[in-house]
Amino acid sequence: MKFKVSARLGYQAKSAGTIILNIHALKTEKQTVLEETFTISPQADAEELITPGTDNRFMRVDIKEPGDYTVTYEAIVDNHFELGKYNKYKDISISQLDPAVLTYLSPSRYCQSDRLYRLAENEFGTLANNYNKAVAITKWIHNHVEYLSGSSTSETSAYDTVAQQAGVCRDFAHLGIALCRSLSIPARYFTGYSYMLIPQDFHACFEAYIAGEWLLFDATRLSPLNGFVKIATGRDAADASIASMFGDINNTDIEISCQLAEDIDFEPRYHYPSVYDGVAYR
Amino acid sequence: MKFKVSARLGYQAKSAGTIILNIHALKTEKQTVLEETFTISPQADAEELITPGTDNRFMRVDIKEPGDYTVTYEAIVDNHFELGKYNKYKDISISQLDPAVLTYLSPSRYCQSDRLYRLAENEFGTLANNYNKAVAITKWIHNHVEYLSGSSTSETSAYDTVAQQAGVCRDFAHLGIALCRSLSIPARYFTGYSYMLIPQDFHACFEAYIAGEWLLFDATRLSPLNGFVKIATGRDAADASIASMFGDINNTDIEISCQLAEDIDFEPRYHYPSVYDGVAYR
Amino acid sequence: MKFKVSARLGYQAKSAGTIILNIHALKTEKQTVLEETFTISPQADAEELITPGTDNRFMRVDIKEPGDYTVTYEAIVDNHFELGKYNKYKDISISQLDPAVLTYLSPSRYCQSDRLYRLAENEFGTLANNYNKAVAITKWIHNHVEYLSGSSTSETSAYDTVAQQAGVCRDFAHLGIALCRSLSIPARYFTGYSYMLIPQDFHACFEAYIAGEWLLFDATRLSPLNGFVKIATGRDAADASIASMFGDINNTDIEISCQLAEDIDFEPRYHYPSVYDGVAYR
Amino acid sequence: MKFKVSARLGYQAKSAGTIILNIHALKTEKQTVLEETFTISPQADAEELITPGTDNRFMRVDIKEPGDYTVTYEAIVDNHFELGKYNKYKDISISQLDPAVLTYLSPSRYCQSDRLYRLAENEFGTLANNYNKAVAITKWIHNHVEYLSGSSTSETSAYDTVAQQAGVCRDFAHLGIALCRSLSIPARYFTGYSYMLIPQDFHACFEAYIAGEWLLFDATRLSPLNGFVKIATGRDAADASIASMFGDINNTDIEISCQLAEDIDFEPRYHYPSVYDGVAYR
Repeated sequence: MKFKVSARLGYQAKSAGTIILNIHALKTEKQTVLEETFTISPQADAEELITPGTDNRFMRVDIKEPGDYTVTYEAIVDNHFELGKYNKYKDISISQLDPAVLTYLSPSRYCQSDRLYRLAENEFGTLANNYNKAVAITKWIHNHVEYLSGSSTSETSAYDTVAQQAGVCRDFAHLGIALCRSLSIPARYFTGYSYMLIPQDFHACFEAYIAGEWLLFDATRLSPLNGFVKIATGRDAADASIASMFGDINNTDIEISCQLAEDIDFEPRYHYPSVYDGVAYR
Repeated sequence: MKFKVSARLGYQAKSAGTIILNIHALKTEKQTVLEETFTISPQADAEELITPGTDNRFMRVDIKEPGDYTVTYEAIVDNHFELGKYNKYKDISISQLDPAVLTYLSPSRYCQSDRLYRLAENEFGTLANNYNKAVAITKWIHNHVEYLSGSSTSETSAYDTVAQQAGVCRDFAHLGIALCRSLSIPARYFTGYSYMLIPQDFHACFEAYIAGEWLLFDATRLSPLNGFVKIATGRDAADASIASMFGDINNTDIEISCQLAEDIDFEPRYHYPSVYDGVAYR
Repeated sequence: MKFKVSARLGYQAKSAGTIILNIHALKTEKQTVLEETFTISPQADAEELITPGTDNRFMRVDIKEPGDYTVTYEAIVDNHFELGKYNKYKDISISQLDPAVLTYLSPSRYCQSDRLYRLAENEFGTLANNYNKAVAITKWIHNHVEYLSGSSTSETSAYDTVAQQAGVCRDFAHLGIALCRSLSIPARYFTGYSYMLIPQDFHACFEAYIAGEWLLFDATRLSPLNGFVKIATGRDAADASIASMFGDINNTDIEISCQLAEDIDFEPRYHYPSVYDGVAYR
Repeated sequence: MKFKVSARLGYQAKSAGTIILNIHALKTEKQTVLEETFTISPQADAEELITPGTDNRFMRVDIKEPGDYTVTYEAIVDNHFELGKYNKYKDISISQLDPAVLTYLSPSRYCQSDRLYRLAENEFGTLANNYNKAVAITKWIHNHVEYLSGSSTSETSAYDTVAQQAGVCRDFAHLGIALCRSLSIPARYFTGYSYMLIPQDFHACFEAYIAGEWLLFDATRLSPLNGFVKIATGRDAADASIASMFGDINNTDIEISCQLAEDIDFEPRYHYPSVYDGVAYR
């Protein structure tokens, strides 16, 4: 499916500094970037970073002069997600797990799975398999946590969200990741452009590694699972934040868009009420 | 310098499960493993994992039967650390940093640098350069935090240690890492065998990335900086823990040793009172 | 009902100091202390404190010399609890509440009701009245939190217990108090001697102020509600701890007993499975 | 000294509910309320609450109808603070302390003294006496914590402020209280109207109980210590908050004023740079 995505980010630099952006569409086996443009005005040096152990496409922008900068990214992306089938999801034991995913079992800054294992065990431990557990976790979060802008900060973690029961997409994702890891299900943070998300913005969800696939879950239920253009994955928002600023630089505005780029009939797919097929972006 | 290291770990498995160990001496440009043996008794399958983005040597042990298991590792290791020179430590700007180290600027499970930047700025922000800052952080931790067995748990993080001012080597390392990252100095967790550590045990310190080198710092001051055999590095203990158990498996005992394996005159080097040369293990 | 209670507490004083004990049976309208003895050996000065705003019977023990001390308290107590009736529990609006109980609506050290109101509202907000809410909270805690010695510390608070789902009686009580206050139900900490508690020890529960009565709830379900001799109430364990030590003084052992002191047929009463009568100790 | 104080508070009530206000000038041995008026418009029932164990003057306002309400309080107050003398501050041992102040040694919601005793001991433990310790704590907070509106929330506690090093007057006070209690110095929260505070607002400080006096300390250094009209004291902001709302009621605006009400020459007194006399409001 072809999508046209764009991001327009404004920054006020009161000093020289560096911005590391992670807004480019990922290039994967199943996601092809047909066209893309990236501009900074006024002009500033930018380089794409190749970082070991991740495919995320970080752009490092070198701000030499204070001033107001605007970053614009536009791309046409063709991607194909996989539709899993419930009946083929067989659990993989830790002893058989791909070593590359083991890191996604560890607690991370915003996902303190080491502190939530009893809750996870009590709520989900008896379910039949990891897929059922991930689906139940996603429903539980949706039912227990209120989506409320401004109810959380950049310091809010899964441990807080369990008690405070409010947050934004980032918090919903962190809690899903933490609960999966507490049950020894590898889980990671997913960011992307999202078709039909209202209002248009970057969106965060989580992926759980089930039966050898990274399956996508969105506890906010705000986006159709088949309408994403994948930007990045990581252990949590600390790995895959949209932008990191060094120096006295602030984000002043943001304008995101994700539209269909071909004339097809888009049928949004959600994990509920009773669709049990998983969705995977490879 | 040649060291003979050994680790003897006992586990009680009440169920089948998996143990992922990280006790093997690292193989690096400057650290050569001359001999090593790894045994499990009673016998159990073990494989060395190759994990992307890290050189850590994880062994995955597959416990098929409940019972008491003993893991033994022995090695002769030849390593050469670099002695830095203070006067050559020039700061590298974020815009010039090796992309591979950027991940060590992010907050992690036990190192919430995002919550400590004011403290770091207030205490260390005005110092001349990153090396001075890392040295001052190490001294500050040594002076403010009491080394006290049992004063912390596996959940204790740098944020807690700042307030509670007690911990073990792991906590000292986490706080050092967090404070460096708060000042935009890449920092990571370091585990190793330590000559002259009393009592003998695994030891944890931290490395700060300064002038293109990973320099070693030990706020506990319990080990000479030139007496380490490096096991692993990671963002914090979540990446580089000695052992992770899956299933109903507990560690029952532990016996560590690190001795000189050649007849030389070892002169222990510490970061204090006034030695300002950095030590780097490549 | 007559009970014979006793407490034997050992302390090791490495320095001079003060111990403030709160182990005496409360004297109330409905609880009469028929006999009591309090001894310290070796002898040390002790005075009973009269503290404004509370009836708790604090004993302040002045330790002038280092050494090993044993405190012994024994009493025969006659108390009468009230058996409430569900159908008479009408909610009282905040505007009509006795001013003396308003303080039990505020968050306290171990009961951060200000951080749990969404959880409380989501889980219990729609129930018919405060009595139903307090009963449901008590059941919820019993079902979600595991009673596990050593799983919590003196720093553990309700906010932690919500996420960690394990604790001891103190933690169960703190969580009950916090959730009630989150729903604007005054709630306080209750300590007492408990008949039929196994093993014998001090016990902590919580009281909720409902329809003008302080009703007793025990989410641990370890003690019959009609087998208590009341020691103290307070906002949380910070107000009503069994002992506070000042100076280098540690508790070394503890021996508690609560027995029937008359020949009657004791029929233990619990809040479950379906007994909806409240129990109140005045 | 005579002050004219006024408070104008606006509330939007979207439902019926109750507001408990604590804005009246305290009536004490040394503070006389010469005149005062309290009005609510549109009219609503209000009663002054007599609460055991505290002299705070709570007004309970019963909001029967949704709507916008304005509360106005005006008073002329004559108060006399005591000027202590350093050389008479002799420490009182716990065994001799007035039982009424013991409660101010306990940790409370926002003042987790139980988690900060090592920090307190390390930074201040060796100072000569409690007065020196309280003065040093006040300076330490002033030097380590940045006064920054919006940097903290109603959930922020002393434990957070130690690490985050930013806050408002309430946070400065909570940290001072926690550190005093960690050193076994009774300490409590103080709110008042403050002459010469810019901008005019309610102000919070802390009182430490030293040599039998409640001495006032203000780590923000924003107000002269001799320009206060005392409103309330409590264990922390949970006891002495300006307003508590029950129901769907929000504070919409606030306008405070504190002016001299007689023609005298006011000489502001601060605790620094080197004035070591304590100030006490009885």
